[in-house]
Amino acid sequence: MIPPDHPRYRQLVVRERLARCAREGIVALEGLTAHGRAEAFDYLIGEKSTATAREAARVAAALLLLARHPVLSVNGNTAALAAAECARLQEVTGCGIEVNLFHRSEERVRRITRILEDVGASVLAGTPERLIPLQHDRALCLPGGIGSADLVLVPLEDGDRCEALRAMGRTVVTIDLNPLSRTARMATLTVVDELTRALPLITEAYRGMTRTEAEALVRGFDNHYLLQAAIAEIVRELSRALD
Amino acid sequence: MIPPDHPRYRQLVVRERLARCAREGIVALEGLTAHGRAEAFDYLIGEKSTATAREAARVAAALLLLARHPVLSVNGNTAALAAAECARLQEVTGCGIEVNLFHRSEERVRRITRILEDVGASVLAGTPERLIPLQHDRALCLPGGIGSADLVLVPLEDGDRCEALRAMGRTVVTIDLNPLSRTARMATLTVVDELTRALPLITEAYRGMTRTEAEALVRGFDNHYLLQAAIAEIVRELSRALD
Repeated sequence: MIPPDHPRYRQLVVRERLARCAREGIVALEGLTAHGRAEAFDYLIGEKSTATAREAARVAAALLLLARHPVLSVNGNTAALAAAECARLQEVTGCGIEVNLFHRSEERVRRITRILEDVGASVLAGTPERLIPLQHDRALCLPGGIGSADLVLVPLEDGDRCEALRAMGRTVVTIDLNPLSRTARMATLTVVDELTRALPLITEAYRGMTRTEAEALVRGFDNHYLLQAAIAEIVRELSRALD
Repeated sequence: MIPPDHPRYRQLVVRERLARCAREGIVALEGLTAHGRAEAFDYLIGEKSTATAREAARVAAALLLLARHPVLSVNGNTAALAAAECARLQEVTGCGIEVNLFHRSEERVRRITRILEDVGASVLAGTPERLIPLQHDRALCLPGGIGSADLVLVPLEDGDRCEALRAMGRTVVTIDLNPLSRTARMATLTVVDELTRALPLITEAYRGMTRTEAEALVRGFDNHYLLQAAIAEIVRELSRALD
C-alpha cells in the first residue's frame, strides 16, 4: 500500500508493522506513542548513527564483554522492531534474553517470546518474582535472569526502572534516542541511537574486541560527556536548517 | 492510577486518554505515533508557547478574521486532544468545522462528530466528494466546507494534503510542533505549538483584533522567518542542557 518511492518509505513501513503488532497485542498502545517520540529524536540526529553513538556502542560492547552475567531486557517495541538484531547480539555475546513488560500479561510475554524464538533467540523462562522495588509490573523478573544480572541492557527503558536498577548496584546500558531523558541520564551508559542501528553496532564492536581493549574503554568513558556530545550533535543538525 | 505528583502527570493523562480513544476507534493507531512525535518536539521547546508561537498565533487570528469562508479541519487526534478548544474557536470566529480523516470510515466520522458536538461545536455534514487531488481518503471533503473554503486551518496535518491545498490556491494555516516538517514548510502559516495551547492563543488574539490590525499583520508576516525563529528557539533550549 505504501509506495516504495515515498520519501519516508522505511519509516512508514515500520509504523505499519508497529500498528499491526499493537492490534495483535504485542506492542502496547503506549508503545506506539513511545515510538513516535523516538522517531522525532531520530529525525533530529539525521536518522543515522552519529560519531558519538558509535563511540558509545563500543563502550557498550566492552561492558558486555567484561560482565559476568549480562541480560538483555526485551519489551514489545524492542521485539517488534529488532527481534533479529537481539538474536544476533545474543549469538555473538552469549547474553541472556528476558522479556520484561510494563503492561504485562502472560499472553503478551508468550507472544513476544515466540517472536524472539522465531528468529533464533533463546529466551529465559521461569516464574518471575518481584525483585525490583517498583510499583508496576516491570518489578517482575526472573531470579536467574535480570534478578541476578550484573549488567542489564535495556533498550527503550523507562526512567523509574533504570533508576531502581542503578540503586541496586547494577550496570545499566540503555539505548535511548532522547539524550535529555531521565533514563539517558540515570544509566551507566547510554547509546543515543535507533535500535536497529545500535544493536548491530554493539554486536560488531564486540566481535573484534579483546579483553584489554574492553578494559581500557570501560576505564575511560564518561556517560555525561557522551550525552553532552549527543546533544551538541542535535544542535549542529538543527543549526544547519538555519539560514 | 497515575499518581498526580508524577513529574510527567499531565503528559501521562493525555497519553492514557489517547490510548482509550484508540481502543474506541476515535484515534487511529498511527495517530498515537504522531502524538509521540509531537510530544518529543514539545519537550524540546520546553512545553510552553514560545514568543514565536505567540506571534504566529496572532497572524493566524488575522488570517481567520480576513477569510471569507474559513474551515477548521478536525481529525481523530485533534478531537481527542482539543475538542473543547475547537468549539471555543468556532464560537469566537464563526469558522466552519469539518471532520477529515486519513483513515476514514463513517463510524469514525460519526464518533468524532459526536465528541465535537458534545462540547458545543457545530459540525458540517453532507456527502463528501473527492475534491482534493490525493490518492487517500483525505481527498474527501464537503463541497460547502473545505471544498469551498478560502482558508483551511489544519492542526496536525500531513504534508501531502497541505501541498495539495496550497496548489489549489487555498490559505493553509497549520499547527505543527515540528518546524522542519514538510507541512510546516508548505503551509501559508505554521504555528509551532502544542494544540491545546495554540488554539486558545488564536481564539484570544482574534477576540481583541480589529480589521486594520489584521491587515497589517497579514501584510507583514513571513512563514520562513517564523520557522527559522522556532528552530532557533529549540537550539537555544537544547544548548541550555550543555555545560
